[in-house]
Parts: sequence; structure tokens; C-alpha cells
Amino acid sequence: MAEPEHVRPRADDPGVVARIVADVYESCRADRSGELADYIPELAAVEPDSFALCLATADGRLYAAGDAETVFTIQSISKPFTYALALADRGPEAVGRHIDVEPSGDAFNEISLDPVTERPRNPMINAGAITAASLIAGRDAEEKFERIRRCYSRFAGRELTMNEPVYASEARTGFRNRAIGYMLRSFGIIESDPDDAVDRYFRQCSVDITCRDLAVMAATLANNGLNPLTRERALTPALTEQVLSVMTTCGMYNAAGDWVTTVGLPAKSGVGGGILAVLPGQIGIAVYSPRLDAHGNSVRGVAACRALSRRLELHFLHVTRAARTAVRGDYTVAEVPSRLRRDTEDMELLTAYGHRARLYQLDGDLLFAGAERAVRTIEAQAGELDALVIDVRRVGEVSGIAGDMLGELQTELAASGCLVALVDPDARLGRTVSGLDPDDPRGRVFLDRDTATEWCEDVLLRRYRPPGDRLPAVIPIVEHPALAALGHEDRARLAEEFEVRTFARGEVIVARGSARSGLYLILEGRVRLGFEGADRRDHRLVTLTAGMSFGEIPMLVGSPFVNEARAEKNVRLAVLGPRRFDTLAEEAPHLKLALLERLAAGAYSQMDAAVRSIAVRGGDY
Amino acid sequence: MAEPEHVRPRADDPGVVARIVADVYESCRADRSGELADYIPELAAVEPDSFALCLATADGRLYAAGDAETVFTIQSISKPFTYALALADRGPEAVGRHIDVEPSGDAFNEISLDPVTERPRNPMINAGAITAASLIAGRDAEEKFERIRRCYSRFAGRELTMNEPVYASEARTGFRNRAIGYMLRSFGIIESDPDDAVDRYFRQCSVDITCRDLAVMAATLANNGLNPLTRERALTPALTEQVLSVMTTCGMYNAAGDWVTTVGLPAKSGVGGGILAVLPGQIGIAVYSPRLDAHGNSVRGVAACRALSRRLELHFLHVTRAARTAVRGDYTVAEVPSRLRRDTEDMELLTAYGHRARLYQLDGDLLFAGAERAVRTIEAQAGELDALVIDVRRVGEVSGIAGDMLGELQTELAASGCLVALVDPDARLGRTVSGLDPDDPRGRVFLDRDTATEWCEDVLLRRYRPPGDRLPAVIPIVEHPALAALGHEDRARLAEEFEVRTFARGEVIVARGSARSGLYLILEGRVRLGFEGADRRDHRLVTLTAGMSFGEIPMLVGSPFVNEARAEKNVRLAVLGPRRFDTLAEEAPHLKLALLERLAAGAYSQMDAAVRSIAVRGGDY
Repeated sequence: MAEPEHVRPRADDPGVVARIVADVYESCRADRSGELADYIPELAAVEPDSFALCLATADGRLYAAGDAETVFTIQSISKPFTYALALADRGPEAVGRHIDVEPSGDAFNEISLDPVTERPRNPMINAGAITAASLIAGRDAEEKFERIRRCYSRFAGRELTMNEPVYASEARTGFRNRAIGYMLRSFGIIESDPDDAVDRYFRQCSVDITCRDLAVMAATLANNGLNPLTRERALTPALTEQVLSVMTTCGMYNAAGDWVTTVGLPAKSGVGGGILAVLPGQIGIAVYSPRLDAHGNSVRGVAACRALSRRLELHFLHVTRAARTAVRGDYTVAEVPSRLRRDTEDMELLTAYGHRARLYQLDGDLLFAGAERAVRTIEAQAGELDALVIDVRRVGEVSGIAGDMLGELQTELAASGCLVALVDPDARLGRTVSGLDPDDPRGRVFLDRDTATEWCEDVLLRRYRPPGDRLPAVIPIVEHPALAALGHEDRARLAEEFEVRTFARGEVIVARGSARSGLYLILEGRVRLGFEGADRRDHRLVTLTAGMSFGEIPMLVGSPFVNEARAEKNVRLAVLGPRRFDTLAEEAPHLKLALLERLAAGAYSQMDAAVRSIAVRGGDY
Repeated sequence: MAEPEHVRPRADDPGVVARIVADVYESCRADRSGELADYIPELAAVEPDSFALCLATADGRLYAAGDAETVFTIQSISKPFTYALALADRGPEAVGRHIDVEPSGDAFNEISLDPVTERPRNPMINAGAITAASLIAGRDAEEKFERIRRCYSRFAGRELTMNEPVYASEARTGFRNRAIGYMLRSFGIIESDPDDAVDRYFRQCSVDITCRDLAVMAATLANNGLNPLTRERALTPALTEQVLSVMTTCGMYNAAGDWVTTVGLPAKSGVGGGILAVLPGQIGIAVYSPRLDAHGNSVRGVAACRALSRRLELHFLHVTRAARTAVRGDYTVAEVPSRLRRDTEDMELLTAYGHRARLYQLDGDLLFAGAERAVRTIEAQAGELDALVIDVRRVGEVSGIAGDMLGELQTELAASGCLVALVDPDARLGRTVSGLDPDDPRGRVFLDRDTATEWCEDVLLRRYRPPGDRLPAVIPIVEHPALAALGHEDRARLAEEFEVRTFARGEVIVARGSARSGLYLILEGRVRLGFEGADRRDHRLVTLTAGMSFGEIPMLVGSPFVNEARAEKNVRLAVLGPRRFDTLAEEAPHLKLALLERLAAGAYSQMDAAVRSIAVRGGDY
């Protein structure tokens, strides 16, 4: 057995977490109590004070202290992994007919079955583990063990090998396990050659590992069965959960209850001196120290796991406390309107009815308990609403049930007259951003809150606008409000200087970065000014309608266009070119002054409204 | 026993969650297998097909289906609560000397102790429960039981009472429990009168409850021992975790392992037909249905818990997956500067060195695994930084270890020359927003990211500004850049129209909502324009320095001031009053025009920069 270089925790090891691991390691180091396993000479021959502690995150970062590369045999820590392979090979039901999942008050090597079920009580006692070894698929003994070795290697992320001398000793002296094998055969729990199953069990216990390997195996269990280093799948998520469940109640020999109370992590230990512990979704822990307590667990291993769990607050009953979602913010369409500038008539309607549409921003993890709280809040208010929007962009984990609950909420509220839309650009709830059909029966999904808000306003306007069609606004140049401050004659004169242009829906009117290119008065249609957000998506600063104007600031200041102007519907514009504008300033300063005051005020109020709406929504200063 | 009104789940019961509970209830209703407990006549006399399912959230919302008000006896579900009271009365260590916390493979009513420890294996088997009853404090038997009854009542949120006929039957026929009592006395586990302890155990098992009560008791355990309805503390958080740990491994008689695998919630059942299950921090579940399976657990109770756990994804090993923190966004001070307008020299320095200060926005729950990821990311970049800011405003739960880790990160990085500040207005990490001492050794804590960014910039300027003091900028009116477009003579003439005013640090210059009151040119000091955010706190839109101006938009447009202007340092201003401004427009339009162009451009670029910085930071459109 080659002894690789000793890895010492260095006091100057950079990093907060590395130091915590090193601290815990040092705090457990002094304890030299406990005895080596001595039922075979190889186990009694190891360095008794060897000690390693490794912590690996579910995304693959490893922190190691001590003899992390010292090789030892996996022993009983093999049991959950062979059980996992048996589950994958035969399915949980078939395996369940051979092995129970109940904790046992008996010793791990008891030569007896549950008196009622006549099955081994669980796969973590020897009888259950030998049964699991008998259930591994394969043409012959060689292939069956090779499949076990490969399985362990997938968990560890490197090719593991068997320690021949340890195997030879185990095979030579394992009378008790042979007795268990024959007992299992006599009860029909093992249906093939019991010697074959017991031999495979000896082999699997003799696989050589390091503390580092064990940490990666633990991290793979923590990562739903996907090895975070190799990205190779070692086990399905559902079977991973089953294996972890059995480890929770049966993993630590007879000390399982105390372990759950003081450590609170699914775990497995082996007489080789290893312990593996898992915080699902987050952390894998491995310890190696071969002196054992009366239960057969590593003395320093148990102490280190206790210290880590207490210090890092890893107890699983503690961690479950964390998952919350809350409605982080909510406001009405009256409080924060969309960036579509509507005409006065619509503005008045929205002032009157804007409280009947509301946006909810969810935050945290969207699991059942959080979703329950969100749904409860929304249901309590929905009776007073015509439309509502749920923004899920800031939620973390999304569980299936939470998605179902929001889907059901949509159906339920739609039936009672309140339309529900989502802001969910990344399809977190499984539905992509809607097309343009305003009556999508499944409820709309939007890219951002601004467009969702516009949709809410449209719902309100459809419901509360007095009957009778309104024609789309078309404004002659002379009646454009931008020229209202001028006298009749001035206005008529100036109108002649403008040139009329049309743009089709979707066409770019002015590209981002263009030089000053004129004053633009909108005579018909909608113009959208957009900017690129931190998410690299294009977002709307504002949409302008007939009677409004843009381009005045570049004209005034001489700066380029910082926003893109695009036709949101077919657009007709009156444009005063830059050269004509400059001549005008020379010829008729009072005219230019009046125009400028009007335009600057408009530009200012657009900008100011945008600042305010972003600030109020985001709360992010 | 009064039978209160039958609570039927209504198909039209409003609400998504109520319907899920009703659905699960209906899906389990058909199963009429199992037998009533019949060891005393009272248990055999209940309505066998009575069925109730309740779910209560940790914040006190209750969902009920079926016979939620039917009264039954608590039986073994009393065990964790008496154990809890014993722990509170004697402390975990003293209790641990009498009762272990190991799962038992034996029957719940075994007349034997663990052969090695000679203690009852756990408090959920009768031997352990009777021992717990013997450990309750009180002057006499009456007071001891009254304390138990009060304890249960605190969990249930109403005064519970004992069912006399059930107690009388239990007391008359409980020979086996008396045998256990005498065995415990003979081993010295019970140190007082065993009849007294057994009698108390009979009484506690005979306490009458409803399914609704049981759900509130479960919710109190879920809520760290604080009753969410009455807000009364029933148990400390630490003892609550211990009780839940023991329930995890020992709560469900001999079916504990299967329960952990298929339900995955700490739970306790009783032969009265009740089951109580807890998802810590989130949910309490209660079921009542008196037909029992071979293990002594309610048939429909087990089925309903399985269905709820599967459907709502409540398995605790699943839920732990959710808690993540990530660095949601990070950017340098060069990418998003503060809203303090600095002079050209400083701006150039910040363009050159702004990449050496970085802001990190954390999100999700700040538990160990999340904090590890955040610390790892930050440590990897900190070598290239002079200052960094960690914004924790969006994190959910904060664990103690995470706070410690960030604190240690501050110390560690400060020692290597990188200063670390927090944005934490609500003192989530336990430290309040700093005073003005720029060298606070513990690292600064800020109200918002803008002020934290300014602090970063100051750190960079202190480090990279060339040596040699710079005098604070003081500008004579005639040299103010606002007048630069005018000829020398015009400038001198106009300067005479201005009036000079001074303001002390902190003084309001213009209140929010004031009418147009003049054009303000800053000659010296700093002026802060602030707005009220969604958090009701005052935030900075921009800070202006000498050579800049404000108030032009209200002058131009005639609108009131929407932002408050306040002196951030002692300030000297040149003000052109509104009347003088209007006369000027009449007398010298070209002069006004030039002034306006310059001022409008400045106002626009302030506003535009604010929009962009808010948009980029928040990503919240």
C-alpha cells in the first residue's frame, strides 16, 4: 500500500472555509482513544493515529486537512453503494422483497432475520449487505464484482482497485458472514450460491480508497447522484434519495439515533476507520481515523462530524427551515404604470381603475411552503382585481408542486374573472414567453414587468372603456402639441419645414449611437425607445404615441442617440432635419426657444418617470 | 364525548391549497382496511370510518378536511411532548442518563431494556415514555400531571382536558405497562414510585384532542417551538430540534425506516388513530383515522401522509436541496460609478483604477453551503482588488456560521490590503450601519449600494491620487462652466444678477415639492439630490459638486422640485431668482438660449446616467 505525501493543514492556508476545516481537524486531533479493528491482521497494521478530514461541496470544490491521500479499505461504507447498484439493477420493489429499510436494534453482524418479515432489517447490516451483493446483475461473478467496482469508481471519480491482502484475509476468516450467507439462503432471501454473494461482499469491503475519494463519493450523493467533478451520473436522483433515507436511520450501526440527534446527516461508517456524511444538495463530508469506539465507528470521525455539523449548522432539520418564498413586493398598475405613454382619455381611465390590476414579485425558493404563502396572499386580494402578474424571475429553486399551484391559481382566478400572467423569461415554470395572442387561454408569459404591466392596462381598458370605437389618433403637423406654444402663423410656417416619413412596424427609426438627425414629431402610431439591460436583453425605456416627440435632446446637446427608436406599430413622423433646425435658431430665436422649452420639458418628464418607475419596482439603489 | 359539527371538504372551497388537501383526503377515503385498537372498550367504540386531515403552516394558517373537530385520545402521540417537558425540566444530559435516543427493532411495548446500556432505547417506546413521565418536575402527582396538561395545551393553543373513562380503562387493564414500570424501577431507571410514573403515563395518553389541535401542535414544532396562533413559547428551539430528531428515527413504531423512505418527515402516531408529522420551519400535518395497520399506525393516516409528502415534495432530504446562495451579480466601480459627480481629475483616476473595486450582490439563503460559494468566489478575485462591497439585502435566512464567515473574510482580506464593506441596512449580519468614521476597523456597513460605491471610489482615490494636497474646488461666478458659452462681457453682466447663498452641511436647500425658485450654480461644496425609494428610505439620485448646477428644469418647465436638494458638505451657491430669469428671457433671448442649452444638456445627462445605473444594478425592468 503506497503512502502518498502527507497533506498538512497549513495555518496560512488561504481561505475562510479551508481554515474552518483545518480548525475542526486540529480540535479533534488530540483524542487518541479507541482501538483499531483487529479481526484481520491488515486492519490492525495501519498507522493508528493517521487522520484526515475532507469537505466537498455539491458543485465539486474540495477542502482537505491531514492525511487525505492515505489509502484504507472502504469496508462497510461500501454497503450503501452496493445497495444503490442493486436498486438500479432490480428496481426498488424487487429489492424491497429481499431487504427491509427498518432500523435494527441488533448488532450489525447478527445472524438473524426480522422474526415477522423473515428479511434482513436493512441493507446496512451485514445480512442486508450480503443480500444486496447477491442481487447485482452480471453474467458471472467476475462481471458482477467489476460492475460494483465501476459503480464505486463513478462515485469517486477515479478508477478504484481492490486490496488483495485484505480480501484474502477477509475471505480466510469471515466465518460469521458465511453463516449469515447460508442463513439467508435457507430462508430463500438469497436465491443463488451464498458463497458467491459472500465472496463478493468480501471483495467490495476490500476496495481501497482515500479520504479524498470518500469526500467525492459523498459529494456525488449530495449532488443527486451526479459526480460534480467528472459530471458522470452515478445514480438517479430518486434512488439517491432512497439510499440517503436508509442511511439516515440505519447508517451508523447502533449509534444511529444519537447520530441523528447530534449530527443530523445521512451517513455511513466502516471499521476501516472511514465515515462518509451527506447534506443533500449541498455538502459531502469524509473523515478517516482508524481508532474505533465501542459501536465500531471512528472516534475522531464521529467527533469531527459532530463539530462540523454544529459549527456549520448542517443538521438537516435545521437546514429545512431555510426554504421560504415571500411576496417581496406588490403594487398596482396605478402606482407604477407601464412605459407606454397613453393618451389623456386612457390615462384617466387607468387612474380610475388602475388599482384593479396588481403585480407580485416573488422571492426565495418556490417550494410548497413558500408557494402556499404566495398563493394565499394573492387569493386574498384577487377578488378585487381584473388582472394580476406574478414575477418569478427572482425565485431560486422551483419545485413541481409550486409550478402546479401557480398554474391552478391561473385557472381558478381566470374562471372568476381575474386574468393572471407571469413574468418568466427563462421558462422557470415550464412555459415560454407568449406570442402575441392577447387571449392565450393558458395565461400570458412575459419577458419583463413593463410589458406585463402594459398587458394589465390593456385588460383594464378593454373592460372599462365606454362602448363605441375610437379611431386611432392621427394628427396633422400644424396641430401637433409640440407647436402649440407658437402663434398660428409661426406654426404654419414651421410646419412647412418638416418632412413626413413613414416606418413599418418593427423597423428601426434611429439606431443606437446615431448622430443628431432631427426633431421627430409623432403624427400616428407608436415609437418604442429601448435600452440594453444588464441581462443583455433589449428593454423598453418608453413607448411614445401620436402627439409626442423625440430626438430633441441630441439636437439640443449635439450628443448621439443613446436609445434605439423603433416603430412598435406602423408610424408616421414629421421630421425637422438638423440643418434646418440650425438655420431656424439663427433666423428666429424666439421660435426655437419656445420649441425647445416644450421639448426639453417633455424629454425631462419621460426620463424622470422612467427613473421613478425603475426605482420603485426594483427597490435596488 | 361531544361530536362537533362535521367539517366536509367542499368542492367549491376557495383556494388552491385547500383543494389539494381536500384532494388528498378524498384519495385516501375509500380505504377502509385496518382494525380499531380494542385493548380497552373505549377505543373499540369510536366511529371506525371517521377521517380528518389538517395541514397547518408554521405561520399559523390551517387547512382542514373531514372530521377535524372529532375528539379522540392522544395516546402515544403524547410521548414526544412529555419527553420535551422532561428535557426542559431536567436538561438533555440528565434525561440522557435515563433514556437513549436509539431506534429499536423491538415492539413498542417490549418489557426489556437495551442489554448493553440497561436503559430504554428511546422515549417513543413505552419504557422510555414511562421513564420520561417519571422525570417531570412538580411537588406531587397532581402538579406533575397538571404541568404535562399545560405543556400539551401550550402546543395546541387551547386548554386540553383528560378523558376520564379512557383513563379509568387504561389504569384498570394496563398490566404490561405496570410490568415495564417495575422493571424500570428494578434497574434504577425510575428512581421514584413506578406506579406514580405509570399512572401519569396513563393520564397523558388519555388527553382528548382533535385533528385540528394536533395540526397546531405539529405547526408549533415546525415553528421552533413557538405556537404560531397564540405566539406562546411551548419549547426552546434547541430542544425542539432534539425532539424532532428522535421522532425522525423512532417515531413510527417499527415502520420508522419505511416512513423515512416514503414520507421523510419527523412524525409520531398513536393507537387512538392520530398521526402528527412535521416539516421543520414550514409545515405541520395531522391525520385522524382510527383503523390501524399491523404496526399500530393509522392506515389512512400513513396513506395521507405519503400522498401529501409525495405531492407537495415535503421529504426533508429533498427540501434541504433548496437552500442556496449565489453571487447573483457583480460589477466594478468602473462599470457602475457612484452618483457622486466627481471632477475630471478624479474621474480619470477612477476610469484607470475603477476595476480594482467590486460590488457583489448575494441572493438566496445565507447558510453554510451558500456562504461557502460566495466566499470562494470573492476570495478568488480579491487579490486584484483594493476594496469590495458585499450587498446582503436580498438574502433570505442568515445562519450564524455565514455571518461569521463573512466577518472572517473581512478580517482576512483587510490584512492583505483589500477593504471589505457590507450593504446591510437592516443589520442582518448583526452590525448596524456605520457612522462616518472612514477607518472603522471592523469594516463599514452601508445603507445602499450607491453610498458603498462612493466609499470604494474614495478608497481608490486615497490610494492612487498622486501625492500633494489638492485644495477643495472654489469657483468664482464668472468662471462657472454654466456661463462658458457666453462672451466675456455677457458673462460679467449676468454674474451680477446672481445672488450668493451659503448652506451648512445637512441643511435643506430646496424642499421636495417646492415651486420653481431659481437657477442654482454650485461654487463650492456638495449638493445631494435625493428621492424616497420603495423602502421609504431616502436615496441619492446624484451628488453634484462645484462647477455643476441644478434647478434648471423647474425653471424651464415651471414644474415643482421633485427631488430634495440638501447640502452634503458646507455649500456656496450662486442663485438666479425666477423673476430675474424671466426678465432675462425677454431682454436677451440669445443669452437665455445659450444658458438653457447648456443647462438642459447637463440635466439630461444626470438623469440619463441615473436611469442607466439603476437599470444595470437592479436588472429589474
